[in-house]
Amino acid sequence: MFELLTGDLYRFQDLLTPEDAEVVTRVRTFLEAEVVPVANDHWARAEFPFPLVKGFADLGIAGARHSNLLSGWIALEMARADASMATFFGVHSGLAMGSIETCGSAEQQERWLPRMRTFEKIGAFALTEPTGGSDVAAGLRTTARRDGDRWILNGKKRWIGNGTFADLIVVWARDVADDQVKGFVVHQDNPGFAATKIENKIALRTVQNADITLTECEVPEADRLQNARSFKDTAKVLRQTRSGVAWEAVGVMLAAYEIALKYAKEREQFGRPIGGFQLVQDLLVRMLGNVTGAMGMCVRLAQLQDAGEFRDEHSALAKAYTTTRMREVVGWARELLAGNGIVLDYDIGRFVADAEALYSYEGTREINTMIVGRAVTGLSAFV
Amino acid sequence: MFELLTGDLYRFQDLLTPEDAEVVTRVRTFLEAEVVPVANDHWARAEFPFPLVKGFADLGIAGARHSNLLSGWIALEMARADASMATFFGVHSGLAMGSIETCGSAEQQERWLPRMRTFEKIGAFALTEPTGGSDVAAGLRTTARRDGDRWILNGKKRWIGNGTFADLIVVWARDVADDQVKGFVVHQDNPGFAATKIENKIALRTVQNADITLTECEVPEADRLQNARSFKDTAKVLRQTRSGVAWEAVGVMLAAYEIALKYAKEREQFGRPIGGFQLVQDLLVRMLGNVTGAMGMCVRLAQLQDAGEFRDEHSALAKAYTTTRMREVVGWARELLAGNGIVLDYDIGRFVADAEALYSYEGTREINTMIVGRAVTGLSAFV
Amino acid sequence: MFELLTGDLYRFQDLLTPEDAEVVTRVRTFLEAEVVPVANDHWARAEFPFPLVKGFADLGIAGARHSNLLSGWIALEMARADASMATFFGVHSGLAMGSIETCGSAEQQERWLPRMRTFEKIGAFALTEPTGGSDVAAGLRTTARRDGDRWILNGKKRWIGNGTFADLIVVWARDVADDQVKGFVVHQDNPGFAATKIENKIALRTVQNADITLTECEVPEADRLQNARSFKDTAKVLRQTRSGVAWEAVGVMLAAYEIALKYAKEREQFGRPIGGFQLVQDLLVRMLGNVTGAMGMCVRLAQLQDAGEFRDEHSALAKAYTTTRMREVVGWARELLAGNGIVLDYDIGRFVADAEALYSYEGTREINTMIVGRAVTGLSAFV
Amino acid sequence: MFELLTGDLYRFQDLLTPEDAEVVTRVRTFLEAEVVPVANDHWARAEFPFPLVKGFADLGIAGARHSNLLSGWIALEMARADASMATFFGVHSGLAMGSIETCGSAEQQERWLPRMRTFEKIGAFALTEPTGGSDVAAGLRTTARRDGDRWILNGKKRWIGNGTFADLIVVWARDVADDQVKGFVVHQDNPGFAATKIENKIALRTVQNADITLTECEVPEADRLQNARSFKDTAKVLRQTRSGVAWEAVGVMLAAYEIALKYAKEREQFGRPIGGFQLVQDLLVRMLGNVTGAMGMCVRLAQLQDAGEFRDEHSALAKAYTTTRMREVVGWARELLAGNGIVLDYDIGRFVADAEALYSYEGTREINTMIVGRAVTGLSAFV
Repeated sequence: MFELLTGDLYRFQDLLTPEDAEVVTRVRTFLEAEVVPVANDHWARAEFPFPLVKGFADLGIAGARHSNLLSGWIALEMARADASMATFFGVHSGLAMGSIETCGSAEQQERWLPRMRTFEKIGAFALTEPTGGSDVAAGLRTTARRDGDRWILNGKKRWIGNGTFADLIVVWARDVADDQVKGFVVHQDNPGFAATKIENKIALRTVQNADITLTECEVPEADRLQNARSFKDTAKVLRQTRSGVAWEAVGVMLAAYEIALKYAKEREQFGRPIGGFQLVQDLLVRMLGNVTGAMGMCVRLAQLQDAGEFRDEHSALAKAYTTTRMREVVGWARELLAGNGIVLDYDIGRFVADAEALYSYEGTREINTMIVGRAVTGLSAFV
Repeated sequence: MFELLTGDLYRFQDLLTPEDAEVVTRVRTFLEAEVVPVANDHWARAEFPFPLVKGFADLGIAGARHSNLLSGWIALEMARADASMATFFGVHSGLAMGSIETCGSAEQQERWLPRMRTFEKIGAFALTEPTGGSDVAAGLRTTARRDGDRWILNGKKRWIGNGTFADLIVVWARDVADDQVKGFVVHQDNPGFAATKIENKIALRTVQNADITLTECEVPEADRLQNARSFKDTAKVLRQTRSGVAWEAVGVMLAAYEIALKYAKEREQFGRPIGGFQLVQDLLVRMLGNVTGAMGMCVRLAQLQDAGEFRDEHSALAKAYTTTRMREVVGWARELLAGNGIVLDYDIGRFVADAEALYSYEGTREINTMIVGRAVTGLSAFV
Repeated sequence: MFELLTGDLYRFQDLLTPEDAEVVTRVRTFLEAEVVPVANDHWARAEFPFPLVKGFADLGIAGARHSNLLSGWIALEMARADASMATFFGVHSGLAMGSIETCGSAEQQERWLPRMRTFEKIGAFALTEPTGGSDVAAGLRTTARRDGDRWILNGKKRWIGNGTFADLIVVWARDVADDQVKGFVVHQDNPGFAATKIENKIALRTVQNADITLTECEVPEADRLQNARSFKDTAKVLRQTRSGVAWEAVGVMLAAYEIALKYAKEREQFGRPIGGFQLVQDLLVRMLGNVTGAMGMCVRLAQLQDAGEFRDEHSALAKAYTTTRMREVVGWARELLAGNGIVLDYDIGRFVADAEALYSYEGTREINTMIVGRAVTGLSAFV
Repeated sequence: MFELLTGDLYRFQDLLTPEDAEVVTRVRTFLEAEVVPVANDHWARAEFPFPLVKGFADLGIAGARHSNLLSGWIALEMARADASMATFFGVHSGLAMGSIETCGSAEQQERWLPRMRTFEKIGAFALTEPTGGSDVAAGLRTTARRDGDRWILNGKKRWIGNGTFADLIVVWARDVADDQVKGFVVHQDNPGFAATKIENKIALRTVQNADITLTECEVPEADRLQNARSFKDTAKVLRQTRSGVAWEAVGVMLAAYEIALKYAKEREQFGRPIGGFQLVQDLLVRMLGNVTGAMGMCVRLAQLQDAGEFRDEHSALAKAYTTTRMREVVGWARELLAGNGIVLDYDIGRFVADAEALYSYEGTREINTMIVGRAVTGLSAFV
């Protein structure tokens, strides 16, 4: 039984195949039963809900070779429940497993992926550094120095999701010999590896981001991703995950719209439900317009990708556009709930806060604007 | 040979069938060759380009039973060339022929439609009145009084597109006997019919809108649309045409984006093309985001309609949303052209102006907001 | 020595008299030295910084009869440091002391105000109820029943700032005898009074808001505010405090602008400070425009009030407008800091969050829109 | 008798001295009696209303040494009546007379200004060129070559307001000898001077802008502005006039608000004035907020200037901010009038169109953003 989401006025859901719809139903059922009820509480305490990992494992979808439409829709469902858990899953399945899938040798894939599929081993992805966003290949300062059949890594990474508890961390570093960016799988217990939790976050508080220090960190050549020869290979992974954030933004919007609509029908002022006031309908319809346009964009993007058309400007446009619309939507929903909108128990507060992280991560609006701008004008405006 | 539109970054065009693509190519070729070159000139003089009518006839698409996707895309193409001519065509084919198709008897369809298909007879649609927008069934004041086998119409209509020259005008009036709204085909030369051109328009200047006065206007029973029994039947016609305006808005956005992008690549400041400046790319990428989201919305709407799902709130949302985004887009494009943006010869000025008409006709943002708002909350906010 | 605030490009500060400037300097010095350094920490823990109260007392400004310009500017300074402490002060000095000043007898003023000036007694103001915002006089359900020389209060209040620790709570209740709203000073230790802290707030976390229950709460006639005869008298207090929120919004904007500007000058990307990029300057200049327009509005409002012109629509417009602009400003500042913007230590996160509370309290944008709308059209759109 | 403007809710008008108020009253009376009644008609025909020049002369205010507050307010009044005539006056009085006042010798001032004050001689100002906006000193290509006691000018100018009929045109050209920009007063009948009207404008249609060609145009040394030694001197003139556009933007907003408010009170839908609907009040109150904030900004700017503080970033911020707000306001007003908003006779259409010109002239939003951005960050983002 595949219920239509309240905010899916245009029935985009019908575009999923029956098999995909079944997967989505399974994911949604798990999220609504297990994740939503505890989301606010973990968020408030900024703690990761380890007991939920088994449930994610049981879904059997980590690292799966789904269509882009299904992958995107799963990201949507997760973010609609909890953008933190969507991020946890995206880092593990999309970034970490995706790196190994895309840049690892057959032996490496065989060695790591099965246990990551079952979440026995959880992954992280360490690219961003304190002095540069995730797009700045040129600024990457972490170094890798080959010494016989091992590598020595030195440097600092920042904002590494799952970084405090992941078992396998995909670290990107610049080979001092040829100046190329290469990938390495570092184990949590490596003595040259140290991770510190970033405290005092106001968004995605359930996600455990780490500051990471690599100090003469030794990695065997066997743990270097054999097919990551330059930043171009890293970029392949990013291109796939950036569209995931666009889908997450849709999920956040759908959640915000549902919360606002429900409140509008129940809350009374001047003796009747506020949903009957023009100013309230104005907010709701603006939200619904944004949701519907963003879904139309993401669905088409997935169709393009499923047809083999993967261009940076495609995902950059979707990421910049949907997260911008999302920020409007969560703001309007919060406004509709007035005072109650600032109490976590009314749910909208968490989405308002988390939206700020989604807006900035995996490429800010500015960076994505310049990626698209360069593609359409043929002129670079980066520097 | 089916070229991709500059602004169609996500290749929505590929969703057309090869047969549809051929129709679109034919339409686009005609528009670019015949309509675009004279558009600014007629607009400036507020005159209708009668010599172009034959070209529209030769396309063979008026009143055709196309898929909703193809119909929508044709509206897009027309508005991308000239929103006035898109309106001319929409009034004739969508509103006038659509009324006869939907509400006329088989005999009436046979009597009128063939010559309308060839534009021997041009149609108009007279619903709006001076005191009320097109949605106000309740406020309709034009009356119809039956007298034997004829009807006597009295009242005033306003904003009637093609009204100054149309041969057949579909007039909606309230039957004084049963208070129901009925439809009548009035001939231009009816002595009880008088049309005056609305002068001094600042938008869609090429469209000839009329103020119409019906004074003891006699219409034979044979010219009453036999299947228009109440305003519900009128609404059926409107529901189909309102989504057409959403498509027109996309066409206007595409045109504005193309004009702006071309200018950004050619115009130099500080010794280099302005397209390389961040602030200019910001405008372009905002435009492109709006275009892409709006296309995604319209395409999905057409798919729903092609699957038989026609709901007022679907087209109301698309109309309100895409025209709102369109207004932003034409404003950004005008801004990008700076001073040259206010000279008609640079094309953008016409689209800026015409956008205002599209934003308000076939239901203002406010009316469409309340149609959607009522559907999603179950509460009416109209009064 | 009176330094210009970074964001005060138009030198509005020069409009203060030298005496006022001295007060502002004293307040600012205290805030920067004592309040700012601990603001994030208390906010994170949602705890009130009781040790700071003495500092507020030493300023000697609670309940002072300042010009409206000076009062407003003090609110600005406080919100620029910490919107929570601005709210604490506003509730105590503006709402609680203001009620006693406006509606209390001379004896009552003498009895309570001196110790409130020194913060020996801290005040709260209990008007809002769970079922209605602060503007809904009609919906007020808390009752007062006279019984000899005492009154019995019953009902629930919500969102009462300082409510968990205030000594004197001004409670508004409806007299069951004459249906008029009256004011009562309830002491914290009254056995019929119970306050519960509202937990899990995502904004103004340092402010202690309470849900309050009054159960057969006995108040002596001597503690009824003798000059509060109807809701009109309550409204007098609100009219004065609502403009205070407009000033607070300016303070929040100034803080956000300062944080963003400093970051833009220090943070480097692509080898140079990001403040030199067009997209970053775009954000900064939009912020500065909003700040300057909002200051111009608030300053003029204060001048009007100082000239004795106090109209509801004046403060309603300022409240709605400046808080709307503030929301934009904090969003742009947060965007400029990208990922770091979601870590409390970078300061902007707190202002982003607190802005949501300011946007909604003391009258939502919707309510204030209708207050202004009614004044300018002469037509009520409330119901 | 000094009436309050409908949109001046905060009574900014009271800040004018009684003498200034008298001047404003005189100007307003003239504008309402003479200019407003013919504004739409001339605009429609794109013709300049020469018979009105005498009325402007009789006001006796051209080139007057008013306070900046009064000068600004006069610009406001003119734009509120007709932005085209405000521009005509601004070019003549501000740019042309201002150049002679600022950069002319005493003899030159004596020679030209008296007859300009009476409009016997009308001025224009030729700085902008086809390839560059008014801010691009570096790109100025028109040359001046000294030959004995005369100069030979060659080059092209564009967008020159009043250029088709002005008697005295202040032309800025680059001295080939020292590469400095110098100013020259060229007479309309100079054989080396040719002006062509720019046709097909969609904004400020009443203003006669010219494309100007200077071909071996001889100017006596006596007609070179003796105190214009470099572009810095030109910039002094611009700094003063740019704030004038900010004031004009306020005037346009005030007009749009008045038109919209009047319509909202008169137009009925669903049996009552639309001004009583929440969605309509929303538009009105947003307008009024923008108007009031922009007035607060302009008034303070004038106060600063009257105190001798003239900085580029001050007027650049005001110009960019108020014209941005103006664009919103005219759009909302047009929306409120729905279909009638596109007919010139309802007045709002002219203001919508003219707003586009004000938004771009005397420095686009982009240019002004970078002027302010450079001032506040200390970093240039121009190239």
